[in-house]
Amino acid sequence: MAKNPADSLIVMTELVLPNDTNTFGNLMGGRLMYWMDIAAALSAQKHATLPVVTASVDNISFENPIKLGNAVHIEAKVTRAFHTSMEVHLMVHGEDLVNRYRYKSNEAYYTFVGLDPHGKPAAVPSIEPVTDLEKSLFDGALRRRQLRLILGGKMKPNDAIELKAIFGI
Amino acid sequence: MAKNPADSLIVMTELVLPNDTNTFGNLMGGRLMYWMDIAAALSAQKHATLPVVTASVDNISFENPIKLGNAVHIEAKVTRAFHTSMEVHLMVHGEDLVNRYRYKSNEAYYTFVGLDPHGKPAAVPSIEPVTDLEKSLFDGALRRRQLRLILGGKMKPNDAIELKAIFGI
Amino acid sequence: MAKNPADSLIVMTELVLPNDTNTFGNLMGGRLMYWMDIAAALSAQKHATLPVVTASVDNISFENPIKLGNAVHIEAKVTRAFHTSMEVHLMVHGEDLVNRYRYKSNEAYYTFVGLDPHGKPAAVPSIEPVTDLEKSLFDGALRRRQLRLILGGKMKPNDAIELKAIFGI
Amino acid sequence: MAKNPADSLIVMTELVLPNDTNTFGNLMGGRLMYWMDIAAALSAQKHATLPVVTASVDNISFENPIKLGNAVHIEAKVTRAFHTSMEVHLMVHGEDLVNRYRYKSNEAYYTFVGLDPHGKPAAVPSIEPVTDLEKSLFDGALRRRQLRLILGGKMKPNDAIELKAIFGI
Amino acid sequence: MAKNPADSLIVMTELVLPNDTNTFGNLMGGRLMYWMDIAAALSAQKHATLPVVTASVDNISFENPIKLGNAVHIEAKVTRAFHTSMEVHLMVHGEDLVNRYRYKSNEAYYTFVGLDPHGKPAAVPSIEPVTDLEKSLFDGALRRRQLRLILGGKMKPNDAIELKAIFGI
Amino acid sequence: MAKNPADSLIVMTELVLPNDTNTFGNLMGGRLMYWMDIAAALSAQKHATLPVVTASVDNISFENPIKLGNAVHIEAKVTRAFHTSMEVHLMVHGEDLVNRYRYKSNEAYYTFVGLDPHGKPAAVPSIEPVTDLEKSLFDGALRRRQLRLILGGKMKPNDAIELKAIFGI
Repeated sequence: MAKNPADSLIVMTELVLPNDTNTFGNLMGGRLMYWMDIAAALSAQKHATLPVVTASVDNISFENPIKLGNAVHIEAKVTRAFHTSMEVHLMVHGEDLVNRYRYKSNEAYYTFVGLDPHGKPAAVPSIEPVTDLEKSLFDGALRRRQLRLILGGKMKPNDAIELKAIFGI
Repeated sequence: MAKNPADSLIVMTELVLPNDTNTFGNLMGGRLMYWMDIAAALSAQKHATLPVVTASVDNISFENPIKLGNAVHIEAKVTRAFHTSMEVHLMVHGEDLVNRYRYKSNEAYYTFVGLDPHGKPAAVPSIEPVTDLEKSLFDGALRRRQLRLILGGKMKPNDAIELKAIFGI
Repeated sequence: MAKNPADSLIVMTELVLPNDTNTFGNLMGGRLMYWMDIAAALSAQKHATLPVVTASVDNISFENPIKLGNAVHIEAKVTRAFHTSMEVHLMVHGEDLVNRYRYKSNEAYYTFVGLDPHGKPAAVPSIEPVTDLEKSLFDGALRRRQLRLILGGKMKPNDAIELKAIFGI
Repeated sequence: MAKNPADSLIVMTELVLPNDTNTFGNLMGGRLMYWMDIAAALSAQKHATLPVVTASVDNISFENPIKLGNAVHIEAKVTRAFHTSMEVHLMVHGEDLVNRYRYKSNEAYYTFVGLDPHGKPAAVPSIEPVTDLEKSLFDGALRRRQLRLILGGKMKPNDAIELKAIFGI
Repeated sequence: MAKNPADSLIVMTELVLPNDTNTFGNLMGGRLMYWMDIAAALSAQKHATLPVVTASVDNISFENPIKLGNAVHIEAKVTRAFHTSMEVHLMVHGEDLVNRYRYKSNEAYYTFVGLDPHGKPAAVPSIEPVTDLEKSLFDGALRRRQLRLILGGKMKPNDAIELKAIFGI
Repeated sequence: MAKNPADSLIVMTELVLPNDTNTFGNLMGGRLMYWMDIAAALSAQKHATLPVVTASVDNISFENPIKLGNAVHIEAKVTRAFHTSMEVHLMVHGEDLVNRYRYKSNEAYYTFVGLDPHGKPAAVPSIEPVTDLEKSLFDGALRRRQLRLILGGKMKPNDAIELKAIFGI
């Protein structure tokens, strides 16, 4: 009973208010990561039909600042499940609705763990990717997981077969 | 250059946190109306490509309470434009993601006015409804507008031709 | 043991802070409706001596914007009780305290239901209006209730005797 | 053109929400002092018809805790003006609206300074107390001011004639 | 088993955001007192290893305003314990990090009471001051306590032996 | 004029309140990342004496959940500067003050860019590490930067000499 990534889609739209901005009038990175965490958690919960907790967040690069008064569009979708954990892909766009200018802000991967009623990790359904993009995100999830395990000190670099491929070795 | 209602669609998802709830652990009506106002304002702004301000809110009836920890799904779309004002339709659902139970919370109409850089009302594009639902919302907008004008003391009940039809007179 | 509307009076004053405003520096409608919901809920609770939940909100028209740094004055009072529900009248003024300029922002009606400890609707005391204004609000409550029932699909327009009177039929 | 204390009255009502409470479910002192600061600032601003800033806060003793879900009633009124500064008296009550139990939480004095458009201290109208309570608060203001000046290191204890009276010397 | 004041040290740093400021762009006193209350409560809790509640706050004088975008540095440390209560000293500095300008904002004393699991006052460890500053704060605590008791109507001025010394009698 | 990492130290302490928690009563990852972003930004700003913006966040792994009512301790320090950017190291501990139990929650690296008054990247002082830990963080910064550039698509894996070393090639 694998599930489709599309079943876990969460679409969130927020408005950048004064308290969300730095002195340049741009959305602070921390406030955006807060919204992304909630969108991703809802997506993981929708897939798992279990309460979830954030296990890790992959490298996030903030490409374009989102201005005060602009809309923030966040799309979250589970890319792959690993027994009790799920990787969620997030795509974030900013939009100046008055000038109809929409731009990519950043893209990220959050990982969540499903929990049973006692707060212990519980098995979650697997993912069956459908579209080409979903398949590509599904395949890359293994490589990103190895990087997470290495960075978390839980895997030796030499055992990261998938990851090593990107170094051509 | 009339626009399609679908072009103004805003999808917002929020999570009910402790401070959003009353002593029964249910989302407070005022907090929901706050989120709806932002979703509707973004939708009106997307249609008008102008800054907008809330002019009025129609009767809202809260059908089902949304519980702490549940997701709130809000969909906002412009139904019709009247020179400088726009009516936005909002559909709100709650969802218990763990039990995959999704339920309608309420439905509402907010009206916004587009503003020029001096803060004066400015003309907005008209709406060309496409689907049957959009056409039905477009037609009903006239009746709701008459009711708003009567309730706001700006129209005599006797002149509300469209509205009177619902009383069969 | 009917109660006086004055016994349920709640007076709330708030200050408009940056995060409450739109890009024109005016209080957002949604933020005001949030404060109104709390003021009205406290008024209904004071009348009922029961926990209450928001059942519906009548048409609200925002007449004058309230500026950043201005005070918001909200007065809430129960106008009439209907077995388990209560209609609360809200009068909202803005005030520029530096220039001693006080102006009406809007006026609204929120309806609440009293709940017993199991969360089921419970009977609330009736209202005995005293002043002329209270009597007028008490009388109008019936008409507004019929409009709410019609708009909520719970009454046929033809049965709304009190409401039809305003159409002169 | 002295003014009446009653002209500066600000009445504020707030609802204690989960995020305002400590682990015992009681309103945190800091959150209450935040609300008191806003109520008192609005009162001082109403008296001065000038923007104001908080100069000092006198000793506050928290007598009775205010519970989650209870109402907080704050009344603020200017007691006396000293050239560019004003002392504001605050009376705070909590209220359990369901059990109709109203209790005093605390009483305090905040001092504000009126500012001109360049942010410099500006003269404010004097106070002409009317009721016995207002007269008593007006008289005590001198003693409290001496205590403030001594505690702030701006007056020698020996020069605090009014204050010394309470020590019977 | 007396404890060292240094064991209760809490260092808090906050950033002044738009919603924390008045119309002059300076941190509002109430917002600062809110942060101070949390820092002081954590310090008292660290000393007592018990939950604590705010009992009182001594006179606070705001010397220099802290600007929007500046950092707020708060240091809290228990000065002395009196059976079930503790006095916490707070030192607050503002800092303009861009111009490397650090300035004292204010200094204050908050008093907390330790609570047992039933919410009743419980004994807390005593304090053994080490540095000269700690000894001086320890000694002054007795005088400040007498002032608190007098201002709270719980001690007659004539019995405040320590306090009277500052009046040279 | 290189600077010492210790000069950029920012110590932040926060209290976990109800609205910061998930349904298990644990601090949400997004809320923690928000606080970390502010602590790290203040540290980078202190080093650069320039306004800064978040450029990227490295992989974060949440090891131990922080409970409602616990303290959150965040220490931020610049590890290395690269012309206009700075890497900030963050160490986060949770603490149950009542049971005197302190535990590591997570460790992270945030990268910031210094900006001139026109919002363009500006050169920042270099870092001269002093302690062994500072030297080790300084050295590792190069490897982490290469990983960031590869993950951001701005460097070919084969050119990441420092990073390749961890794969033993």
